[in-house]
Amino acid sequence: MYNCDVKRMEDKITTFSKFGDAGHGGITRYSLSPEAIQARNEFVKRMEAIGATIETDDLANVYATIAGSDQKAKRIVMASHVDSVKNGGNYDGILGVMGGMEVLETIVAENIPHKHPMTAMIWTNEEGSLYPPAMMCSGVVCNDFLPEAIGKKFKLENMLKSKSVIDRTTTFGEALDASGFKGDKKNRLSADQYKAMFEIHIEQGPILEDAGNDVGVVTCVLGMFNYRIRFYGQADHAGTTPMHKRQDALFAAAQALVYLHAEIDKLGRPELVYTTGEILCHPNVHTVIPDLIDFSIDVRHEDPKVLEQVLAIVKSLETKEWAKCKCDIELAWARDTVYFDKELIAITKEAAEENGVKHQFINSGAGHDAQFASYMIPTTMIFVVSKDGHSHCEPEFSTPEQCTAGATVMLNAVLKVDAK
Amino acid sequence: MYNCDVKRMEDKITTFSKFGDAGHGGITRYSLSPEAIQARNEFVKRMEAIGATIETDDLANVYATIAGSDQKAKRIVMASHVDSVKNGGNYDGILGVMGGMEVLETIVAENIPHKHPMTAMIWTNEEGSLYPPAMMCSGVVCNDFLPEAIGKKFKLENMLKSKSVIDRTTTFGEALDASGFKGDKKNRLSADQYKAMFEIHIEQGPILEDAGNDVGVVTCVLGMFNYRIRFYGQADHAGTTPMHKRQDALFAAAQALVYLHAEIDKLGRPELVYTTGEILCHPNVHTVIPDLIDFSIDVRHEDPKVLEQVLAIVKSLETKEWAKCKCDIELAWARDTVYFDKELIAITKEAAEENGVKHQFINSGAGHDAQFASYMIPTTMIFVVSKDGHSHCEPEFSTPEQCTAGATVMLNAVLKVDAK
Repeated sequence: MYNCDVKRMEDKITTFSKFGDAGHGGITRYSLSPEAIQARNEFVKRMEAIGATIETDDLANVYATIAGSDQKAKRIVMASHVDSVKNGGNYDGILGVMGGMEVLETIVAENIPHKHPMTAMIWTNEEGSLYPPAMMCSGVVCNDFLPEAIGKKFKLENMLKSKSVIDRTTTFGEALDASGFKGDKKNRLSADQYKAMFEIHIEQGPILEDAGNDVGVVTCVLGMFNYRIRFYGQADHAGTTPMHKRQDALFAAAQALVYLHAEIDKLGRPELVYTTGEILCHPNVHTVIPDLIDFSIDVRHEDPKVLEQVLAIVKSLETKEWAKCKCDIELAWARDTVYFDKELIAITKEAAEENGVKHQFINSGAGHDAQFASYMIPTTMIFVVSKDGHSHCEPEFSTPEQCTAGATVMLNAVLKVDAK
Repeated sequence: MYNCDVKRMEDKITTFSKFGDAGHGGITRYSLSPEAIQARNEFVKRMEAIGATIETDDLANVYATIAGSDQKAKRIVMASHVDSVKNGGNYDGILGVMGGMEVLETIVAENIPHKHPMTAMIWTNEEGSLYPPAMMCSGVVCNDFLPEAIGKKFKLENMLKSKSVIDRTTTFGEALDASGFKGDKKNRLSADQYKAMFEIHIEQGPILEDAGNDVGVVTCVLGMFNYRIRFYGQADHAGTTPMHKRQDALFAAAQALVYLHAEIDKLGRPELVYTTGEILCHPNVHTVIPDLIDFSIDVRHEDPKVLEQVLAIVKSLETKEWAKCKCDIELAWARDTVYFDKELIAITKEAAEENGVKHQFINSGAGHDAQFASYMIPTTMIFVVSKDGHSHCEPEFSTPEQCTAGATVMLNAVLKVDAK
């Protein structure tokens, strides 16, 4: 049993929080932006200081590797991302990178014997905030292993053409070329050269905090589906059309949304989550009855049977009229539940127990690079408790002790994998 | 009793429908656009052909006047607009201009004796589609007579600065200067020089059609209020936030909208209309729980007591929590019911009866230039039945016979006013 160092972790948190500091407690650090390059340079500087070898691949993913006693052994990698959403916090992504650094620093500082080379890694463009989609580079690197429908979305040639959502001109490929971090394709994470991957991440929800635990041993990324639901009405003048003559698409949508909540809640599945986050209204003029409403529904649960039950409720919308409006639904996208490696999960739980870290099993409702990596090599994740469950916003917070507890669990789990 | 001419009216409808023809049954004819200038030139050409004198004022409102036997008598004016909304139809606005032309043409053709000079008029920029707001130029011309809150909105110096919603650069003042129709302020419609104003307009609703009537004698423009209703939630990740922890502003708004419909409908006022036409959602991302919904509610009824009852229901939203979200409401604007001139209403009804035109009393849910004019001089409106109640869209349709029936009623009403 070894422990990571709270002071060293705290120093990293303080330092990395400066790169992209937006001035009110959080950061904006788009992938490959000057701020993200600062963070990458800091990573390289600190990793070179402990004798790690730096490599980059053709997607600017960065790998810092310390030798093991058997240089022919496959590497064990700990990876996450340094990029953030707009006005994000100081933990989402970067905590997983700092966790990998902290593990290597501890191994070197305490001269911990180990057989396999150990790698701390930065995935490029996890958020996809500037160049969509999210999880772009793990999608490319693991592409041959992904289910066909997902893999198709992440073809390299298309990703290189992804345009900046700000200037609508610069492509991801151009940003890559300009980054100074573009390297060789042969350096990509691969099943040949890597034995296992770990990723630390903040929980992004309130479950660990509510249970009084510091760490979550992540078992899966929840299966989900995302549908578009549309209501077709008739645009008419707000002042001259009697109520009984109206086909009001927004009133239809409001009734349908209340119905969906009532019916889905009847399933009695407290662990089920569903969200309508986006709504479009046409023509969206205060004096015109809306003739089109288009809203999203995002539904997540581990059990495909539960997802099927919810889908049946969503589909039942089409069989009725809503405020004299027709309704249709369309699949936007879906994924099956991705289960992490059973052995790695067991080892991680063991490490948490042995180190006295308060922990529990948990699943991930959000997507992460680890979920794509898990199609290629044995992978798991470790969640760190996150104050009030906030993420993708400036109030993100976990204490240095909690962050270090996550790194300690990863360190001991990695050493157990190393010993196998 | 005199009758207007169906063939002549049909010819005008066919001709004016070409100016701004969008190629699929309707027009786009923004105020002062090249297409609107074509329509104005056609108006001038036809009015000069019957010996009318053309004048324009400083807002490019156009007045075509034929002499009466007493040239010192005040004029009687028949006015509407030639501009349309984007992809509008061939009747909204232009029918009132063609109606005025038809009356003058009939008087001249049949040599009908009359004392007062008679004027057919084009109001500039009624729709405000390119240069907001709507009813801009009647708002300026009648400004000294308007209630203070409304008058303030229509100050000339501000109107001249109104920018094109397309290029965001050209001002209404610049478009005026370039139009070739800018004239002298002294030519403006005024209480000193005008005795009464009539406006023909399509109904924009289905009431006349449902009742089997061709013409509506308009008694008032409905009083109304428009509020913004806002719900404040908490933005969180759609995949990681348990349902019981959420403050979902969109679910709150959906429940409130269903509640509003249920409570307002309990008032049992079939002639009441209320509309939520605009809804804004923040951040409007399918994976994020909405933290702000802002929607409009537009409520119209003749009786201020009924409006007060509805307002009490709207205000009751603030006293409750909706899906754990707070709600507040804010007045956007309101107007009292504007009653048209009682004597003109009675005369118009008499004219319809005497000419055997199927008619009824009706109110206007929409705003019109006549409503501002009515603060300054005796004014009323005549509605023509509109197929399926459509307006502000390409399917607008009234038969030539129905349009002519409206003009015939106006002709005989104008002659009755002339004789008083």
